[in-house]
Amino acid sequence: VADATARDVGEFGLIDRVVSRLGTARQVLLGPGDDAAVVAAADGRVVATTDVLVEGVHFRRDWSSAQDVGHKAAAANLADVMAMGGTGTALLVALVAPPDLPVDWALGLADGLRDEAAEVGAVVVGGDTARGDRVVVSVTALGDLAGRAPVTRDGACPGDVVVVAGRLGESAAGLALLQSGVLTGRLVDAHRRPRPPYALGPVLAAAGATAMCDVSDGLLADLGHVARASGVSVGLHTDRLRAMLVDGVTLQHALAGGEDHGLVATLPAGTPLPDGVRAVGRVDPGPAGVLLDGQPATGGWEHFR
Amino acid sequence: VADATARDVGEFGLIDRVVSRLGTARQVLLGPGDDAAVVAAADGRVVATTDVLVEGVHFRRDWSSAQDVGHKAAAANLADVMAMGGTGTALLVALVAPPDLPVDWALGLADGLRDEAAEVGAVVVGGDTARGDRVVVSVTALGDLAGRAPVTRDGACPGDVVVVAGRLGESAAGLALLQSGVLTGRLVDAHRRPRPPYALGPVLAAAGATAMCDVSDGLLADLGHVARASGVSVGLHTDRLRAMLVDGVTLQHALAGGEDHGLVATLPAGTPLPDGVRAVGRVDPGPAGVLLDGQPATGGWEHFR
Repeated sequence: VADATARDVGEFGLIDRVVSRLGTARQVLLGPGDDAAVVAAADGRVVATTDVLVEGVHFRRDWSSAQDVGHKAAAANLADVMAMGGTGTALLVALVAPPDLPVDWALGLADGLRDEAAEVGAVVVGGDTARGDRVVVSVTALGDLAGRAPVTRDGACPGDVVVVAGRLGESAAGLALLQSGVLTGRLVDAHRRPRPPYALGPVLAAAGATAMCDVSDGLLADLGHVARASGVSVGLHTDRLRAMLVDGVTLQHALAGGEDHGLVATLPAGTPLPDGVRAVGRVDPGPAGVLLDGQPATGGWEHFR
Repeated sequence: VADATARDVGEFGLIDRVVSRLGTARQVLLGPGDDAAVVAAADGRVVATTDVLVEGVHFRRDWSSAQDVGHKAAAANLADVMAMGGTGTALLVALVAPPDLPVDWALGLADGLRDEAAEVGAVVVGGDTARGDRVVVSVTALGDLAGRAPVTRDGACPGDVVVVAGRLGESAAGLALLQSGVLTGRLVDAHRRPRPPYALGPVLAAAGATAMCDVSDGLLADLGHVARASGVSVGLHTDRLRAMLVDGVTLQHALAGGEDHGLVATLPAGTPLPDGVRAVGRVDPGPAGVLLDGQPATGGWEHFR
């Protein structure tokens, strides 16, 4: 039935259809269909993170396709694994949906999750579904550190270089366009589907990154987390940032806009910069905070306000 | 402030307060506060499962305290790990909440999650929060198999004994009481806080269980999963079931009511039954399905209908 809804096919019918879209991989020792999945954790540790997307808050069904939402939900989580220096191995997905949700939407979501996970070789191994007024997609990503120590937020040292990788401000610029009625174009697509620089998390970890964080709340807010956790002052050069912006993206988008899921890290001075990584500032002794061209700065996204 | 809401303290204020309630344990290599957590997976594998609770579907804030909801959300997930023969090690929690949610409710939820997790030595290692109309609590549990193979649903063999452990029908009976206006008592409490027989999952796995499943959708529905996955006929003796019911619980509650998060398993005939485990039927060659005193039976909970 082309226009079938969740109600039409029922909970188990929906789950069967979704599971039939998913792939598998060597690290999946037991996939969907039992009480729980079993995933290999070769180095005796597992990275784990959860990010939730709410319809009307993180996405709109008239602005983003189901596939887009799947890509975004997977990317938000896999980027957190990347920011520890790891690589995603598996996703678990809880979908809350109204009974009139088209089955095709749920299948599109599954396709988006599967395809984004495939970017790093991860697969969807389990999930749950329940009834609710609005679509909520809660994803947990598991990941592997390949024997390395996780790169936390609290290791930035005075003298370190501040580097960024991935898109900067493009998601925020795309959101502003959507809000003004522009529904197509490169920046709008950047809002719909972030492109985290997945490979660079492990690369920066191996290069000796002293702190690392994904850019999900905006560059200032996320660097603020690093500055406070490390007890250091993080200075950014706005000319360096401006030089990186693509057409249509303002410095404000880059500083305060989240959801690009790029990487920000600190590296010991003199570390050769991997391809795709650019230096934008340096770390100095406290007080803890972020300076823009030497001036204190704040800003970013937060819920409930 | 005694009556503070999520809006009053903001996203990061809420997270800080919640995190301050949580404990830690040896298996937690990196806890809350970074992009992701890192949890030990000593035997090179990790069990993972997700269950979501939605306000108005799985709980009502006027029927259950925040602590109750925390206990229930943790138990639903930890019971899935138990049903693989494993033991929970860590929880991740996504909380969707309206901005007017009292901070005390979120803290009560955290306390309930923490205390239920502590029953098996697990801890909350991470999470996320976002704004929404209704409270949604999505939990992922990670767990450890201690070197054993996971016990799946598809291994039941003709000749096996069917066994159950844990409460039977008490949550469903308690829900019926709540719906009729009775707000206190043992059964109502059983609905508010399930008590999965956590220790018996690993015990039954070690005893050679050929299939195992937690009782979350009702005994008939969950045994139906085992029967279909294993391609066998599962026969239940209603007199054996009736003999196990506590006052106020009917056979229908036990057969069709979910949410007790007990265990149902199949064991090779002649296996000595561990304490707390009772035989209620036997496995025969197909057709796949569940028989009640020799007659075909169906029933259970499902969303969207």
